[in-house]
Amino acid sequence: MEKTSFSIIEKELTEQNIVLEAELAPVIKRVIHTTADFEYVKTLKFSDGVINIIKNALKNGADIITDTNMAKAGINKKSLAKYGGEVHCFMADDDVATEAKEKNLTRAAVSMQKASEIEKPLVFAVGNAPTALFELCSLIEKGYKPVAVIGVPVGFVNVVAAKEMIMKAGVPFIVNQGRKGGSNVAAAICNALLYNLND
Amino acid sequence: MEKTSFSIIEKELTEQNIVLEAELAPVIKRVIHTTADFEYVKTLKFSDGVINIIKNALKNGADIITDTNMAKAGINKKSLAKYGGEVHCFMADDDVATEAKEKNLTRAAVSMQKASEIEKPLVFAVGNAPTALFELCSLIEKGYKPVAVIGVPVGFVNVVAAKEMIMKAGVPFIVNQGRKGGSNVAAAICNALLYNLND
Repeated sequence: MEKTSFSIIEKELTEQNIVLEAELAPVIKRVIHTTADFEYVKTLKFSDGVINIIKNALKNGADIITDTNMAKAGINKKSLAKYGGEVHCFMADDDVATEAKEKNLTRAAVSMQKASEIEKPLVFAVGNAPTALFELCSLIEKGYKPVAVIGVPVGFVNVVAAKEMIMKAGVPFIVNQGRKGGSNVAAAICNALLYNLND
Repeated sequence: MEKTSFSIIEKELTEQNIVLEAELAPVIKRVIHTTADFEYVKTLKFSDGVINIIKNALKNGADIITDTNMAKAGINKKSLAKYGGEVHCFMADDDVATEAKEKNLTRAAVSMQKASEIEKPLVFAVGNAPTALFELCSLIEKGYKPVAVIGVPVGFVNVVAAKEMIMKAGVPFIVNQGRKGGSNVAAAICNALLYNLND
């Protein structure tokens, strides 16, 4: 059924005279598959070479950090584990909740700080919290170097700005410009990369 | 921030001259909040009285069945537990995988069969698999009575048909007509109901 879905997506892209860059196509098509929304063709933005940067990191055992347990649930953890990687989401951790309250930060921001202490290459997949992206920008400014940031939070407040900011942070990124995105989109992008690691 | 988001959504609905039915508004607005997609105003369909039917069942401890662990992850399980309900997703169960292979069915279909054996009132929240909806139609035809079916699978194959079919099955429903939907939408609808149980 997935194969048929992708055929329909390809057919409709052709009917709309849309030609996707070969390197980006698996990601864009999987996001459309997950959302049934062709608008992502226009709004998904990729920094130069980001696909291979993330694929190489995942092949070498990089971990993925998400900002929701929904995104974590959606990422194919078996595929990732084959290469030695795992998915972390610290949002529901008690120490994160406590620290967020003490420092008057969001749990998403504290989760990013906690993740940045992991001494492994990390791919960040943010599907919900713009404050996670703001915190990543701040960590990057202080010298932290993630493998890449997948920045696809959804929403109406600070979301557009957070995405614009992470695209200027000087790190590899995949971002969906505008309001749309979500944990499902974050998971779909990770899975598209995982399923095509050796292409 | 959530409050501000809902204010923006309300403002934009007003600007578009859209007036939502009071009973349905919390569900429609939360789906827009989750997707940043105002198209749902037009496509979400509700059977008569379904909001109160589901709320009353949840208040009396009904369980929720999902067809993905992502939807399960997204539903506010603490809110549900207050009333004695829990969320089940059988998709990753070994017995489901085995039976699906033996009977040449999808795991989603077998998951629905397994759920239907639970002797409790159940709300089904289907965000992914049209075959889950087809199986529910078949179970209902044989006499099974769910509290309601939230039918919001997303996709390109059988999805539109499965949604049309469940709307004619004679059970209370919330369905998003067309291709769009998803586990995030299924979870958002459940949470909208849980957060407004006493309104």
